[in-house]
Amino acid sequence: MSTSGSNLDINTVLEKSAKYRNWGKWGSEDELGSGNYVTAETIARAATLVKKGSVFSLALPLDSKGPMDGSFDRVNPIHLMMQDGGDIAAGGQDHLATLRYTDDSVYLVLQSSTQWDALSHIYHDGKMYNDYGLEMVTSQGAHKNSITNMKDRAVGRGVLLDIARYKGKKSLDVSEPISNEDLEGCAAAEGVEIGEGDFVLVRTGQMQQRRDAGSWGDFAGGPAPGLAISASDFFCPRHVTAVATDTWGTEVLPNETPDVFQPLHIIMLVNAGIYLGEMWDMEELAADCAADGVYEFMLVAPPLTVTGSVGSPVNPQAIK
Amino acid sequence: MSTSGSNLDINTVLEKSAKYRNWGKWGSEDELGSGNYVTAETIARAATLVKKGSVFSLALPLDSKGPMDGSFDRVNPIHLMMQDGGDIAAGGQDHLATLRYTDDSVYLVLQSSTQWDALSHIYHDGKMYNDYGLEMVTSQGAHKNSITNMKDRAVGRGVLLDIARYKGKKSLDVSEPISNEDLEGCAAAEGVEIGEGDFVLVRTGQMQQRRDAGSWGDFAGGPAPGLAISASDFFCPRHVTAVATDTWGTEVLPNETPDVFQPLHIIMLVNAGIYLGEMWDMEELAADCAADGVYEFMLVAPPLTVTGSVGSPVNPQAIK
Amino acid sequence: MSTSGSNLDINTVLEKSAKYRNWGKWGSEDELGSGNYVTAETIARAATLVKKGSVFSLALPLDSKGPMDGSFDRVNPIHLMMQDGGDIAAGGQDHLATLRYTDDSVYLVLQSSTQWDALSHIYHDGKMYNDYGLEMVTSQGAHKNSITNMKDRAVGRGVLLDIARYKGKKSLDVSEPISNEDLEGCAAAEGVEIGEGDFVLVRTGQMQQRRDAGSWGDFAGGPAPGLAISASDFFCPRHVTAVATDTWGTEVLPNETPDVFQPLHIIMLVNAGIYLGEMWDMEELAADCAADGVYEFMLVAPPLTVTGSVGSPVNPQAIK
Amino acid sequence: MSTSGSNLDINTVLEKSAKYRNWGKWGSEDELGSGNYVTAETIARAATLVKKGSVFSLALPLDSKGPMDGSFDRVNPIHLMMQDGGDIAAGGQDHLATLRYTDDSVYLVLQSSTQWDALSHIYHDGKMYNDYGLEMVTSQGAHKNSITNMKDRAVGRGVLLDIARYKGKKSLDVSEPISNEDLEGCAAAEGVEIGEGDFVLVRTGQMQQRRDAGSWGDFAGGPAPGLAISASDFFCPRHVTAVATDTWGTEVLPNETPDVFQPLHIIMLVNAGIYLGEMWDMEELAADCAADGVYEFMLVAPPLTVTGSVGSPVNPQAIK
Repeated sequence: MSTSGSNLDINTVLEKSAKYRNWGKWGSEDELGSGNYVTAETIARAATLVKKGSVFSLALPLDSKGPMDGSFDRVNPIHLMMQDGGDIAAGGQDHLATLRYTDDSVYLVLQSSTQWDALSHIYHDGKMYNDYGLEMVTSQGAHKNSITNMKDRAVGRGVLLDIARYKGKKSLDVSEPISNEDLEGCAAAEGVEIGEGDFVLVRTGQMQQRRDAGSWGDFAGGPAPGLAISASDFFCPRHVTAVATDTWGTEVLPNETPDVFQPLHIIMLVNAGIYLGEMWDMEELAADCAADGVYEFMLVAPPLTVTGSVGSPVNPQAIK
Repeated sequence: MSTSGSNLDINTVLEKSAKYRNWGKWGSEDELGSGNYVTAETIARAATLVKKGSVFSLALPLDSKGPMDGSFDRVNPIHLMMQDGGDIAAGGQDHLATLRYTDDSVYLVLQSSTQWDALSHIYHDGKMYNDYGLEMVTSQGAHKNSITNMKDRAVGRGVLLDIARYKGKKSLDVSEPISNEDLEGCAAAEGVEIGEGDFVLVRTGQMQQRRDAGSWGDFAGGPAPGLAISASDFFCPRHVTAVATDTWGTEVLPNETPDVFQPLHIIMLVNAGIYLGEMWDMEELAADCAADGVYEFMLVAPPLTVTGSVGSPVNPQAIK
Repeated sequence: MSTSGSNLDINTVLEKSAKYRNWGKWGSEDELGSGNYVTAETIARAATLVKKGSVFSLALPLDSKGPMDGSFDRVNPIHLMMQDGGDIAAGGQDHLATLRYTDDSVYLVLQSSTQWDALSHIYHDGKMYNDYGLEMVTSQGAHKNSITNMKDRAVGRGVLLDIARYKGKKSLDVSEPISNEDLEGCAAAEGVEIGEGDFVLVRTGQMQQRRDAGSWGDFAGGPAPGLAISASDFFCPRHVTAVATDTWGTEVLPNETPDVFQPLHIIMLVNAGIYLGEMWDMEELAADCAADGVYEFMLVAPPLTVTGSVGSPVNPQAIK
Repeated sequence: MSTSGSNLDINTVLEKSAKYRNWGKWGSEDELGSGNYVTAETIARAATLVKKGSVFSLALPLDSKGPMDGSFDRVNPIHLMMQDGGDIAAGGQDHLATLRYTDDSVYLVLQSSTQWDALSHIYHDGKMYNDYGLEMVTSQGAHKNSITNMKDRAVGRGVLLDIARYKGKKSLDVSEPISNEDLEGCAAAEGVEIGEGDFVLVRTGQMQQRRDAGSWGDFAGGPAPGLAISASDFFCPRHVTAVATDTWGTEVLPNETPDVFQPLHIIMLVNAGIYLGEMWDMEELAADCAADGVYEFMLVAPPLTVTGSVGSPVNPQAIK
C-alpha cells in the first residue's frame, strides 16, 4: 500500500505524533531530544568507520547565487568586505607597521543554505519539543532547544540512503514521496542497518538536477521529492539522531496532508526530537559510496554557536 | 637566549619568511598552502585517536557578549529573529496549516569570535600566500586563498600544547612570549611529537583568565601572552597545517618587533601557508587532557563556505 | 514647587495619561495621533518663517563613533562598501563600458542616532496609542502606528526652547529636570508661543557637553538632564505634534518615578500621541537663534519609509 | 532631429563632459559641485512657493517588495525587529518598570529604492567629480564627495517636468528617450523656467506603469524610458543642482552609446557635479500639478548622514 495515499490528514499526524513522542523521556528539562542518542559509544564507533581518509564537505557555497528566492523573507547570504586589497593599495592601512590585512562579514539567514533545524524551529499547537511554549522563543532568540545544544553532539555514524540511485534514477520525480518501504528497501540494497544515534542522509538527486538545469527555480519551497509521512515509521523506532536531505524542506511537497503543512516536521522534530538537515549536498559523497559500495562513514556536522539560534548553517563533514 | 629579545626587527621577519616560504612548492596556482599536508593518511590516522568517544566544542558563544570591542570595526555577532513565538501567538502564521515555525538570521563579522584566518587574510609587501597580489581581494571577496579551500581539509590530528599548565600557571602573564624552547619543552613533557599535517592548539589560559574576571577587557588587541617569533622555528619545519590559540591574535602582544605588527602572521601564514586559529576555547579539553594524560585527538574544524571569505567562524570539534 | 518632587509615582502617570489621552479623538482607526494637528494651514504658515534662507541639519553622523554602547542591543551604524575605488583599480568592473561606480549599504538600528520614535515604539499596560494591542507589532513590524504614517506629516513650525541658554548654562546639570515652569519661562524669554501642530525642540546642551568631553560616556541611557513629568502640562494642552531633545531619551534620568521607567513617554507618546525626537543636534541652530533672536523656523524632518518601522533615523532640517 | 541617433559614442560623451565640466570652479577642494548653486536666496525663494500647504512624500516603501532583483548585488531592504509585541507578551521586558517598548533595525542597500547618487558614486577614467581619484573611496567609505555634504543643501525650488503627460501618455514607451527638445517643450507647456539651484523632477510614468502591472519586472536595470544625452544641454547650462526621475537609472536604457554605460552620469554627475535622484515616486505630486497647473514647489530632500556614503535613501518632500 502506498504511503502517499490521499486519505492522510491531521489525524494521521496526531496519531504518529503521539506514538513517537519523546517528551519527558529524558526529563522535563531536556533540550537535546534525539541528540541524547549520541553517546561515547556511538562516537567512538563512528570513528572506526574512517578507513581511507576521504573527507566530503556537504555544504553548498554561501553566496548570492544560493537557492533562496525571498520566500519566507529568506534571502541568500550577503558577504561584505570590511578591508580588502584595494584598501591596502589605496594606503588605507599605512598606519600599520608592515603587515596588511583583509576582513569581512556576512549577513546570513541561518537556514538559507545547507543547514540544521533546531528543535526550537517548529511548533505545533503552541508547543515545541518537550512541551516548551511559545514564550520560549522571543526576539532575543530561543531560550530552550537552541541548536547550540548540539554544539558537541553532531558527531556520529552517518549513513547515506541514496534513494535516487536505488530507484535507478538520476533524480526522483517532482513530488515523488519516499516511504518507509523505500527506505527499508534502499538500506537493504546497500547492506546497511540504521541504528540508534545515526545521522541518516537521504539523497533524492533534486539538488543536482537543479544544478544541471543551471537554475534553482522553485527549489526553495516548490514541488519536490521528499520523505513521506510513513518515513517516520522508519526513523523513529530506530532512534536516529538526525535525518538530512538534499532538498529544501525534507518532506515531499506538496505534502500528503492538505490540512497540515510539513507534517513530518511535527512528528519527527517536534515530537520525536529528531534533528532535520536540509539542502545538504551529497553528490560527491554519493558517487564515492556508489564506487566503493560503502554507505556508512563518520559524520561531523557542528552547528555555529549563535546563542539562541533556531537553526544553523553547517558544513557537514562525511569522513570515510 | 631569550626569543623575545629586544633586538628583533623586520630583518628577522624577512629572514624567517624567506627560510620558511612555501610559495610555488605546490605549484603556482596553489591555494591550500599547508593544507596540502592534510592527506588521506593523516586523516585516517587522526580517526584512530578517537578512543573514548568524547567531543569537545572549542567555540565561544556567538552573541553580543563576545570579546569584540569595536576595534578594527569588528562588532560582536548580531542575532536577529525573523519569526518567533510571539509572532505565532499574535496569529502571524495563521495562514499556515497547523505547523508554526521560527526563523532567524545573524550579522556576523567572520573573525569576531572563535575563527580561522584564511591565507587571504594577511598581506606583506603587497603579496599574500603564493605570490597573489592585492587585486585578488576586492569588495567581491577573495578570488584566491579563500578559507573555503579548506572546506574539506580541516580534519586531522589535533595536539594540545598546554603551555600554561606546562609552566605551572593558571594563565600566562600579560605579554609573556611562547618560544620555540617552550613549545619543545611542553611537547616533551606531554609526551607528544608534532608532525606533518597536525593541527596544534596552544593554550595560554588567557581566555579563562578573562572569563574568571567577568570581563573581556582588552582581550581583543590588548597586551597578551602568545607565540614568539621563534615559534616559527618549531612549527614550520614540522610541516603543521594549522596553529590555534585561545587568544585574540595568536602572537605575543606587544609584538617583539616594533617595526612589524604581528610578525608571525607574515612568517607562518603569508610565507609558510600555515592556517591560524584564534579565540579557540580550550578549557574543557585541557582539563580532560590533564586528567587522562592524552594530548592528541581527532580535530574536525570545518569553516563556513562563504564564497570569497577571508576568515570564518568555526566550531572546532576535538574528539578523543 | 519643584516638579521633580520625590512623591511622584505611577499614580501621577496614570492621572496625566487619562487627562491627556487622545485615543479615539480622531477615530478608532487613527494612526497619526498628534500628527493630525499638522494641517495645510500649519504647513503653509511654517513656510512663511523662512526668511534668510539658512538650513540647519540636526542630524548626528551615522557611523561607528556614534553614541550607542550596546545597551538595549543597540549598536552604532555599520557602513559596508559593496563596490569601491579599490575594486575599480583592481579591474573588478572592467566588464562595464567606460563608467565605473561605487556602492554601499548600512546595517542600521533605527533608533541608534538622531531619530523619531513612532507611536508604536512604546506600550503601557499592553496598549500603544489609540488602544492597539501587543499583537500589532510582530517580527514583521508594526501593523499599526508605524512611523511611516508621518512620511508626509513631519513638516511644520519648529520652535527651539533653548533651556540651557535660558538657565545661563553651557549645559544643564546631570539629572536636572525641565519643568512646565521652565518651559513657560524659556518661551516667554524667547518671545515665542507654542501652538497647535508645532514641533518643539528642547535643548539641554548635554550633546555638546559630551562632544566637548571627547567621549559619549553614558550618554545612551545614563543620568541625564531632560523633561520632567510636568512638561506634559506644557506640551499636551498646547496640542504640539512633536517634541525633540538633544538627549538620548527625552526625559530626565533617573526618572522622577521610581516605579515607572520613562513616564513621559507613557503620558505623551502612548496617550497624547505626541511624537518624540531624540539625539537631535541643535548646536548650530541654537547659536544662530541666539544671534538673531529668532527661535522659530520651518521644520522638515521626514522619516525613512521602512514599512512597519517603529522608529526612524532622520536628518531634520531647520530652515530659517 | 532625434537626439537618440545611433551615431552617438564615447566622443560625444567626452565632448560634452569637457564642455560642462565644473572641476575647479569652486576650488580644488570642493565637494559640493552643483550643490554650490544652493544659496540663501534660492532657499528663501523656494519657501515662497509653499501656498496651499500640501506635502507630497516621493519615497517608495522600503521593504522586501521593493524593485531590487539582486542585480549589482542590490537586495531589497531587510527590516528586522529587535523587540516586538510578542516579546512583551512573553514577559521579556518584565524587568522594566511598567513601560514596554519595541525596537527595530534595517539592512539597507543605500541605493535600493528612492535615493540620491552622491558625487562619489560614479567614476570615469579613474576620476570622480573634481578630479578625485580611486583611492578616495575605500572600504571605509568615500573620503571625498560623500552625499553627507548635502546634509543641509538638499533644499530648494523643485520643478516637475511631467514628460509623460506632456506627450499625452500614461507612461513613456520602453526605451523612449527624453531629449533637450522634449524638456524645453515640456517646460514651455507647463509655463515654468528652470534656473540655477533648481531640483528638477522628470516623470516618465514608468514607475506607475509597473505598479499597475503588479510587478516590478525588469525595472531595476532593464530597458526603460529616460533622459537622452542631449538632456545635458538642457540641464547643465541652466545650473540645476539636481535631476531626479521615477526610473531606476535616470537615463534611457539601452543607452544611446554602445561603448559607454550610463553616459549622462558621466557628463552630468562626474563632470558638471549635478546630483541625480532615482526611483522617486512622483505620481501623487503629478496628479496635483496637473490639477492646479502649478509645477513648482519647495523641495526638501535631506540625505541620511551615513559617514562616507556614496548614496542615500531619501524621503523627498515636495511642498506646495
